[in-house]
Amino acid sequence: ITFIYRVRSCREKMTMSASGPTPPFTTLSISQPATHVTHVELHRPQKYNSMNKVFWSEMVECFNQIAEDPECRAVVFSAAGKIFTSGVDIMDMAGEILSPDGDDTARKSWQTRHIIIKHQKTFSVIEKCPKPVVVAVQGPCIGAGVDLITACDIRLCTKDAWFQVKEVDVGLAADVGTLQRLPSAIGSRSLVNELALTARKMFSDEAMSCGLVSRVLPDKETMLTAAMEIAVEIAARSPVAVQGTKINLVYSRDHSVSESLDYMATWNMSMLQTNDLMKSAQAAMEKKNLKDVPFSNL
Amino acid sequence: ITFIYRVRSCREKMTMSASGPTPPFTTLSISQPATHVTHVELHRPQKYNSMNKVFWSEMVECFNQIAEDPECRAVVFSAAGKIFTSGVDIMDMAGEILSPDGDDTARKSWQTRHIIIKHQKTFSVIEKCPKPVVVAVQGPCIGAGVDLITACDIRLCTKDAWFQVKEVDVGLAADVGTLQRLPSAIGSRSLVNELALTARKMFSDEAMSCGLVSRVLPDKETMLTAAMEIAVEIAARSPVAVQGTKINLVYSRDHSVSESLDYMATWNMSMLQTNDLMKSAQAAMEKKNLKDVPFSNL
Amino acid sequence: ITFIYRVRSCREKMTMSASGPTPPFTTLSISQPATHVTHVELHRPQKYNSMNKVFWSEMVECFNQIAEDPECRAVVFSAAGKIFTSGVDIMDMAGEILSPDGDDTARKSWQTRHIIIKHQKTFSVIEKCPKPVVVAVQGPCIGAGVDLITACDIRLCTKDAWFQVKEVDVGLAADVGTLQRLPSAIGSRSLVNELALTARKMFSDEAMSCGLVSRVLPDKETMLTAAMEIAVEIAARSPVAVQGTKINLVYSRDHSVSESLDYMATWNMSMLQTNDLMKSAQAAMEKKNLKDVPFSNL
Amino acid sequence: ITFIYRVRSCREKMTMSASGPTPPFTTLSISQPATHVTHVELHRPQKYNSMNKVFWSEMVECFNQIAEDPECRAVVFSAAGKIFTSGVDIMDMAGEILSPDGDDTARKSWQTRHIIIKHQKTFSVIEKCPKPVVVAVQGPCIGAGVDLITACDIRLCTKDAWFQVKEVDVGLAADVGTLQRLPSAIGSRSLVNELALTARKMFSDEAMSCGLVSRVLPDKETMLTAAMEIAVEIAARSPVAVQGTKINLVYSRDHSVSESLDYMATWNMSMLQTNDLMKSAQAAMEKKNLKDVPFSNL
Amino acid sequence: ITFIYRVRSCREKMTMSASGPTPPFTTLSISQPATHVTHVELHRPQKYNSMNKVFWSEMVECFNQIAEDPECRAVVFSAAGKIFTSGVDIMDMAGEILSPDGDDTARKSWQTRHIIIKHQKTFSVIEKCPKPVVVAVQGPCIGAGVDLITACDIRLCTKDAWFQVKEVDVGLAADVGTLQRLPSAIGSRSLVNELALTARKMFSDEAMSCGLVSRVLPDKETMLTAAMEIAVEIAARSPVAVQGTKINLVYSRDHSVSESLDYMATWNMSMLQTNDLMKSAQAAMEKKNLKDVPFSNL
Amino acid sequence: ITFIYRVRSCREKMTMSASGPTPPFTTLSISQPATHVTHVELHRPQKYNSMNKVFWSEMVECFNQIAEDPECRAVVFSAAGKIFTSGVDIMDMAGEILSPDGDDTARKSWQTRHIIIKHQKTFSVIEKCPKPVVVAVQGPCIGAGVDLITACDIRLCTKDAWFQVKEVDVGLAADVGTLQRLPSAIGSRSLVNELALTARKMFSDEAMSCGLVSRVLPDKETMLTAAMEIAVEIAARSPVAVQGTKINLVYSRDHSVSESLDYMATWNMSMLQTNDLMKSAQAAMEKKNLKDVPFSNL
Repeated sequence: ITFIYRVRSCREKMTMSASGPTPPFTTLSISQPATHVTHVELHRPQKYNSMNKVFWSEMVECFNQIAEDPECRAVVFSAAGKIFTSGVDIMDMAGEILSPDGDDTARKSWQTRHIIIKHQKTFSVIEKCPKPVVVAVQGPCIGAGVDLITACDIRLCTKDAWFQVKEVDVGLAADVGTLQRLPSAIGSRSLVNELALTARKMFSDEAMSCGLVSRVLPDKETMLTAAMEIAVEIAARSPVAVQGTKINLVYSRDHSVSESLDYMATWNMSMLQTNDLMKSAQAAMEKKNLKDVPFSNL
Repeated sequence: ITFIYRVRSCREKMTMSASGPTPPFTTLSISQPATHVTHVELHRPQKYNSMNKVFWSEMVECFNQIAEDPECRAVVFSAAGKIFTSGVDIMDMAGEILSPDGDDTARKSWQTRHIIIKHQKTFSVIEKCPKPVVVAVQGPCIGAGVDLITACDIRLCTKDAWFQVKEVDVGLAADVGTLQRLPSAIGSRSLVNELALTARKMFSDEAMSCGLVSRVLPDKETMLTAAMEIAVEIAARSPVAVQGTKINLVYSRDHSVSESLDYMATWNMSMLQTNDLMKSAQAAMEKKNLKDVPFSNL
Repeated sequence: ITFIYRVRSCREKMTMSASGPTPPFTTLSISQPATHVTHVELHRPQKYNSMNKVFWSEMVECFNQIAEDPECRAVVFSAAGKIFTSGVDIMDMAGEILSPDGDDTARKSWQTRHIIIKHQKTFSVIEKCPKPVVVAVQGPCIGAGVDLITACDIRLCTKDAWFQVKEVDVGLAADVGTLQRLPSAIGSRSLVNELALTARKMFSDEAMSCGLVSRVLPDKETMLTAAMEIAVEIAARSPVAVQGTKINLVYSRDHSVSESLDYMATWNMSMLQTNDLMKSAQAAMEKKNLKDVPFSNL
Repeated sequence: ITFIYRVRSCREKMTMSASGPTPPFTTLSISQPATHVTHVELHRPQKYNSMNKVFWSEMVECFNQIAEDPECRAVVFSAAGKIFTSGVDIMDMAGEILSPDGDDTARKSWQTRHIIIKHQKTFSVIEKCPKPVVVAVQGPCIGAGVDLITACDIRLCTKDAWFQVKEVDVGLAADVGTLQRLPSAIGSRSLVNELALTARKMFSDEAMSCGLVSRVLPDKETMLTAAMEIAVEIAARSPVAVQGTKINLVYSRDHSVSESLDYMATWNMSMLQTNDLMKSAQAAMEKKNLKDVPFSNL
Repeated sequence: ITFIYRVRSCREKMTMSASGPTPPFTTLSISQPATHVTHVELHRPQKYNSMNKVFWSEMVECFNQIAEDPECRAVVFSAAGKIFTSGVDIMDMAGEILSPDGDDTARKSWQTRHIIIKHQKTFSVIEKCPKPVVVAVQGPCIGAGVDLITACDIRLCTKDAWFQVKEVDVGLAADVGTLQRLPSAIGSRSLVNELALTARKMFSDEAMSCGLVSRVLPDKETMLTAAMEIAVEIAARSPVAVQGTKINLVYSRDHSVSESLDYMATWNMSMLQTNDLMKSAQAAMEKKNLKDVPFSNL
Repeated sequence: ITFIYRVRSCREKMTMSASGPTPPFTTLSISQPATHVTHVELHRPQKYNSMNKVFWSEMVECFNQIAEDPECRAVVFSAAGKIFTSGVDIMDMAGEILSPDGDDTARKSWQTRHIIIKHQKTFSVIEKCPKPVVVAVQGPCIGAGVDLITACDIRLCTKDAWFQVKEVDVGLAADVGTLQRLPSAIGSRSLVNELALTARKMFSDEAMSCGLVSRVLPDKETMLTAAMEIAVEIAARSPVAVQGTKINLVYSRDHSVSESLDYMATWNMSMLQTNDLMKSAQAAMEKKNLKDVPFSNL
């Protein structure tokens, strides 16, 4: 496997903001700001990082590559400019959604269902990718943006960030992940319902207190540094441990505790047979930083 | 279908407190304080709004009507007077619960099970009704009151409100919804267990920080206004969008994410074929308030 | 049934700290500091209360006894000394985990799975025991300590307590309960993921705000008193009500609301046929303290 | 409770074929041919027992009454004349299905969903009724007829009976029970698929060998006698035992074995406390026929 | 581990019928008639192999030993004499079931539930034991006998065998496995219901055609030989393959196909790393009998 | 979309046996023997139709194309020559399975899991493809062949066909579908277990009586004609009806009846809004053959 994205230069790593999309992508900029860390940047700032047709398939391609990339052990997802995302690019997408092909209602519905399922996959790939994804949100995160971030593993935001489950405002029930993942992302069901039913904005302090994000940072630069630090911490640990943890955390959300324990035992019966255990233990005894321990790729 | 409740007068709308139950109901007062909004008031203030035999069936009748009423798009539920509810009206209910009919223990148990299931339905109708229900709690909310409010969608309370899972104090495990819905309503399982096992009171600040309510208001009047505003916001939006959102939020609580996404896609394959999309989009472009958009009834 | 632990002396009750393990146990000290309350203390302070081989089976034995003990109605679990637990006693356990028996990988995996399942049972017995367990955490609670406390019902901690999902640091995915129970214990999924994937410490204030614990106390003594008070409150209530509540709360975590309501109705059809209802009601009317009501053992 | 159907005369019992519907029903004839046995006959022979609008609600009313009727312990369901049923009465139903109300596709779909759910309930009441239902099929059993019989507990047919999952022939997927219940009713999935996808007729011998029916009888009269004998056998047994058996058989179809065992234990913890155990045991010892044992009603 | 049963003599192996129980068991006779095959015989022929109190716990002890015994790879279960079993030994068990301890109905129910769960475990151990169990039934197999055999993996019977779900006849719903396992054991739901609701006898030919047994043999001796041949075939194969097959077959009965495939992949990711693959392949190429391939114990 | 396979000539259609694979496929021959019917033939007769590396990905490509092909409404799957399939092509596949990449056991297991999941998908695509698949089996169908056919919808075989769950013979538990789908395909669990645990051959008569196949035909030519007739019947019906039927039959296998009914209602709320209903009804009234009704593609 050869990977299509190239390692970004040092200076870029520091700013963590690319000058433009990484070909062949036109909406995503991809770089490797640190060892074993991949940075994916949604890069349509002039269009408020709205999600156009091509974005939905580029995300799938991008995260499938990341899932297969043995060098990548953690991902930072962010968006260029001052606006995280304004959500779906209505102008680009309206045709497909509003006028599905089909000779009668049944056939139009069939076609519509295919379109929805395809778009759901765009964010489910984030969850299916075994490498943890840290998402960093600045400014507005609207509509499909909330669907996107709830499929990520760790959420940070800036003080000026706000979140809006916008879909009811435009006449539809959110159908690519928000209604499915937000309730298990935050602790207050009353709040989930209020957000989804009224489309009111939620600002960073409430996002923090309700648990949607686990940290609020003063500005975008600080936030990206924090996101990077978390990613670097994760990437420094045994990929067997880290990816097994993500897979089993996702599993346990959707199963009973007893089923999840059974799956976990079946998972770890082989995963405990790794040299990473000894390497990690030795590092601990020698007070060595895990970043200096050379774990094999997974 | 003709609906039995009549539209309340303007003044009543403002105070949102009826002078008495709406016939044929004897425990509920029903009004339409705003377009597409129904207000249901538990109205036994002289009896601390305790739930007597007739209340349990009136709730079912009332919410079945609301579910079928095409004019209603959002519901506010509140209680008359200073006490939200003292819970079950023991005096009125004891006979049925303590002395079930039956020639032997099996038959008494059979009868008891029927009674429990019947009472569970009283609150499940709130959840099954596709119109969102905003509940507003002042003063004490005790026992079955907690079962009731956890079946509502959005919870507000006054500063002087407090909540008590009272059932262990009277010798039984809460069996009409609290043990089933409270854990997914709030974020701390330790707190859920403490409340349910010790019957201690939880005051409004803790109710806010744990997520049981999404807003605390200074007094009942302000709270009712806030509840009404939320209901009006919801009622202004496309009923196709709003009711699809509620139905899918309830669905996703009880299913895995992948099952919920599948259901959502199957739901929206037809629900996206609505004029509300275009109407909503146009309103957005014209900066028109959604309250001025005439969505068809559902 | 005769129970192997003896009632501790009065002074011990007050300090709630035993001078050593209760034979035949070597890692647990067991006492009855109040009527119907059992205190289990993890007692290897000189070894940081690390969990050695014998601990894992003593826990099972201990909680099986507690489950069967009609005198016990509530449990306090705490740890001797200043450190709640440093987690697994690597020195004692490494052999079994790192060198499982077996002629080939399949057989080693088979053996490893047996070991994991056995260790999972150590904490699942806490959950399967119908008597509520209040856990009190001081200082560090590391690795398997988090697995342990998430299987308890009510969590308290001291101001100096901190929690660490340590497993990724030592090269493995946590496999005896944390990844399965932590997500439903606290309200922020982003935080769960961050803790499990980075192994960062979480201090008491964050543990409180995220809902892992329901109370933070200034020091160990105050905390133990608070834990004891909660346990005494629980023990004073009808054991039919209390144990039915725990069993149904655990059930509803793992089932849909409608399934849980059905189970609850089937449970209570017999459990409502108890004298405890009348005794509790009478106590309420006579303003009697429930602690003075003599409920029969269960 | 007073029941609306009257006990039929002796002669009618023997022929088990009513001269006409039992008022207020217009499509069902109801009688009590034997102690504790209710006979429900679909009675529109002149219309091939096709299911018109009123039938769908009469079934619900009828089986709700049966569920509540303490005198009824077993049910025989049959159809008047030579044809069991030709399925839906298209002429009477087409309007509702083909032209649902609604201003746009979403609203028409919403309305259609309500109609489907309402019709699903017509057969689900048979399953929810705790009294076992023996169905006896002669001649053609087409379309909705298969939905109906798969919701019954025991199926008999005559030699000349045949079954047809007709729905694909008229342009729709069967949506009131066949696709949900037929697969667990018979043992060959290949056959289920073939029947549902090709709408081919299945004759009585194949219905027997695949397990759809448990007995084939030479003619209608013999079959009704056999059905009646089974019902009488069931009605002679303890209603606590019989109805608990049906409820738990339905439960176990939809749950894992371990969940079903748990439910069963919770069910029987009270249901074993019945005098029927002693009465049954005594009858066995005294070689008495169970039909002579006076079990209390349930 | 030392195992309590001794290898039977050669002659006994051939007859496969012990002269009496194997101490310390009093109801079970255990032998090793062939390499890696354990024979468990229910041995109370003078009491019609009825299941007395001690039987229920001996089964658990016995199958727990078998599960842990690395030498055992397949089990034959049969019963001494001419009657497979008459079911529960009422005389010995009645006290416990009919007069549970407890001061009120709730407490009696609690106690009853414990008793039921304990008895359910007696047969669930057969299913949890990863070694396949072939059961051989002659003559009557009544009541709890059906619960027992449905927990076994492969069922054979003699021509004179008959089966009876007897529980409704004695006033209770079968609660130790039949209602949970019989429906997935055979292909006709109508037949399951008829058997469970009427308690009628099912003879060997119907047991064969409905799939309850997979072979009918002319007499007990022939049947035991056939059972032994099957067990020997199983025991000759890789224990990694065989036991993984049983575990995953039980798993897939209780889960969706996609969940079961996921579990299977997670299971086999280590289990494919076995020398048994190469040994088996080599045997195939060399046309060697698998019985001559020395697989390591598991 | 352009489809890579070309329509075969008339003569080929009649014999239904291609002279070789259809480029770019090397193991599959694809043709359109009748309107709306696609014929997929496994075509490696000289290698006993064993499944080599390329086969596993060609199947995915092929069925993904079929799923998207609006012209295709039914599929016949068969195999060239006299042997349906000998299963996995060990020579071609052994390397990947026996020597997975990876520096330690954990990494080898990770790799192995990926390989298994990839191979599971090869047969799951058949099930996910909404067009019904009729499979026709002649001669031996071994190992992975059983995994393949259990993922098809309708199974036919010749008199000389036999089936063998071969995996235990070669040292592994079957992991690409047999253990997951066979139990719900046939009615006797004892037989499923016997087949999977002993690897004994099952011949056509037993395959018929247990329900694995729904028809046995005398020879391959007759069988292919029968398969084609079934496919033609299916293809003649409304694709909205047919594909909705398949999707809901697969759904109901993996969900409870009440969940499946809910999904069905949500599915059909749009799918009933099809012109196919009217077209089908009209054809019925005019006694027209459905093959002459021009349904729009789906």
